Amino acid sequence: MIENNVLITDDVATTLREALADQSYNKIAVIVDEHTEEHCLPLVAEAIGEHWLLPIKSGEENKILDTCAQLWGALTEASFGRKDLVINLGGGVIGDMGGFVASTYKRGLDFINLPTTLLAQVDASIGGKLGIDFEGLKNHIGLFKAPTQVIVYPDFIKTLSKRELYSGFAEVIKHALIKDATYWKTISGQSFDSYDWNHLIKHSIEIKKEVVTSDPYEGGERKILNFGHTLGHAVETHFLHTTERLLHGEAIAVGMICEAFLSYKFAGLEEQAMKEISEFIVGIYQPKQIDVQLFDTIIQLTLQDKKNHAGLVNYSLLKGIGRCGFDYQVSKQLVLDSLFYFNSLLK
Amino acid sequence: MIENNVLITDDVATTLREALADQSYNKIAVIVDEHTEEHCLPLVAEAIGEHWLLPIKSGEENKILDTCAQLWGALTEASFGRKDLVINLGGGVIGDMGGFVASTYKRGLDFINLPTTLLAQVDASIGGKLGIDFEGLKNHIGLFKAPTQVIVYPDFIKTLSKRELYSGFAEVIKHALIKDATYWKTISGQSFDSYDWNHLIKHSIEIKKEVVTSDPYEGGERKILNFGHTLGHAVETHFLHTTERLLHGEAIAVGMICEAFLSYKFAGLEEQAMKEISEFIVGIYQPKQIDVQLFDTIIQLTLQDKKNHAGLVNYSLLKGIGRCGFDYQVSKQLVLDSLFYFNSLLK
Repeated sequence: MIENNVLITDDVATTLREALADQSYNKIAVIVDEHTEEHCLPLVAEAIGEHWLLPIKSGEENKILDTCAQLWGALTEASFGRKDLVINLGGGVIGDMGGFVASTYKRGLDFINLPTTLLAQVDASIGGKLGIDFEGLKNHIGLFKAPTQVIVYPDFIKTLSKRELYSGFAEVIKHALIKDATYWKTISGQSFDSYDWNHLIKHSIEIKKEVVTSDPYEGGERKILNFGHTLGHAVETHFLHTTERLLHGEAIAVGMICEAFLSYKFAGLEEQAMKEISEFIVGIYQPKQIDVQLFDTIIQLTLQDKKNHAGLVNYSLLKGIGRCGFDYQVSKQLVLDSLFYFNSLLK
Repeated sequence: MIENNVLITDDVATTLREALADQSYNKIAVIVDEHTEEHCLPLVAEAIGEHWLLPIKSGEENKILDTCAQLWGALTEASFGRKDLVINLGGGVIGDMGGFVASTYKRGLDFINLPTTLLAQVDASIGGKLGIDFEGLKNHIGLFKAPTQVIVYPDFIKTLSKRELYSGFAEVIKHALIKDATYWKTISGQSFDSYDWNHLIKHSIEIKKEVVTSDPYEGGERKILNFGHTLGHAVETHFLHTTERLLHGEAIAVGMICEAFLSYKFAGLEEQAMKEISEFIVGIYQPKQIDVQLFDTIIQLTLQDKKNHAGLVNYSLLKGIGRCGFDYQVSKQLVLDSLFYFNSLLK
């Protein structure tokens, strides 16, 4: 069972100290990247107490098997045992990979996620999806296991660049679109700078928890969380090793526009709603057109999507704002059209 | 939950055909090594039908991350999706590693184990321990997950060398010693050539299932299955990369003799029982003395044992024949003595 032990706190040190006091961990490892070591570790180091620091390089390009081997090696070197603890202090990369490393080291250590990015707070830390990229494919190797505890400290997002904040916001948009029309009105009716982030984070976590609790292993309903992600992941994967690398949320923004088009053509979303969604996303992300010559490559990459079955690509599409369906099989021509639609918005 | 879906059959093709007919797998991959491809695949290929053959090299030295990457790559290449199936046709190496690969590819495919060695039939295939060796440490990376189905065909063991058969028999001995004094009388009162293997395999599976069902994640009772394995794994690990490589059961045979000595010194096993156990095992395995200069290295290797907690090595020891306890912490001196005892039997 994927449990979702999420605490939201405005005093991260105290909450963490209390969580650790309940247990009797002998050793604690803290996985950080260069950013979280500088900006976030000082806020929690004292509460954690003595620990092994396991630094990795930030960036999706490091969410790979080689980094796992390095982390497994460090835990081995420090003789970590089954009753010890790993703390993941970082964004989605550290949460996904650190959780995978902890869950497979000696067949599983406890791990606590302290998500430091908006993306990780509202999305990656919730729902027990762990994993790494493999041969350039996103989250291709991994497993389902919930962290022992997730501690969300919204103030961590003050350490983020605007670009990182926008990236995480894509998942907030998605939560509204798939599940909550009122929430959509709230976020689309306000300027970005006037958001109450504490409220947004809390509400987005509630939506995600509700969906994953109803279907932990993605047999059905959970697939709605993939709205924007089938084409979004393909776009992200393609640009991962180029100089035009996109952050996850930036790619999902592209994916949501294309899949809003598919939703209009295929799943009952009204044209006006499609336009409203597209304009809002374009306004925030100011995306660039995608070279038409890449369309085939991107469509090819959707074939590796994990929701596929029997060679068919399954899309999660909006029936309306706040209502999402799944397992839609869309023709290649329509997917092509959706990419042309995306480009047409940016002329 | 670790479920144990074990079928024992004398008609493997029919049983497999029925198991597959219940499902609607789109693609099936079969992992084999050079031995099982030659001797076992012909018996099941027709029942499986169309499949992708994923051959790996036999041997514990190949139960490593590089081989996993190769298998994940092959599944990716063939566009395997979440509703597809992996069949592990082999011994403990293929079962442990193939299960790990299947359970982590796209966060988990179904997998069926067709154990072809005695060791895998009575031990490795039951109980959901999956994993690979890492930096020379046995099963250091892995997870708990039961196969979708285990199909045991006792006649596969006719394809084994005598040495392989002996290796698997060590786990049969262990099952008797930790849980069933009557079973011990049965096996120690007969010559090796007169065993009813169908009965032994069935009974050993029953014992293992009973233990793992009572404690799937090894919080307590399941640890009794580690009798002979703390020193046994250390011995196996040490010799893994030498020309004197031992098979798993051969190392466990050494471990059981040493740990019978520790059981006598520490856990209430009678001296006469210790001698009876030692003589029986020496008679079957004819082990060689271990160089005294290696004793420290071997004891050092027990520090990486997965049952350890807070830097202490935990042994599972016999209170008597058929009764086993766990979490015994034994002094280094006594462990040394047990290795000297082992050598003294072989003068």
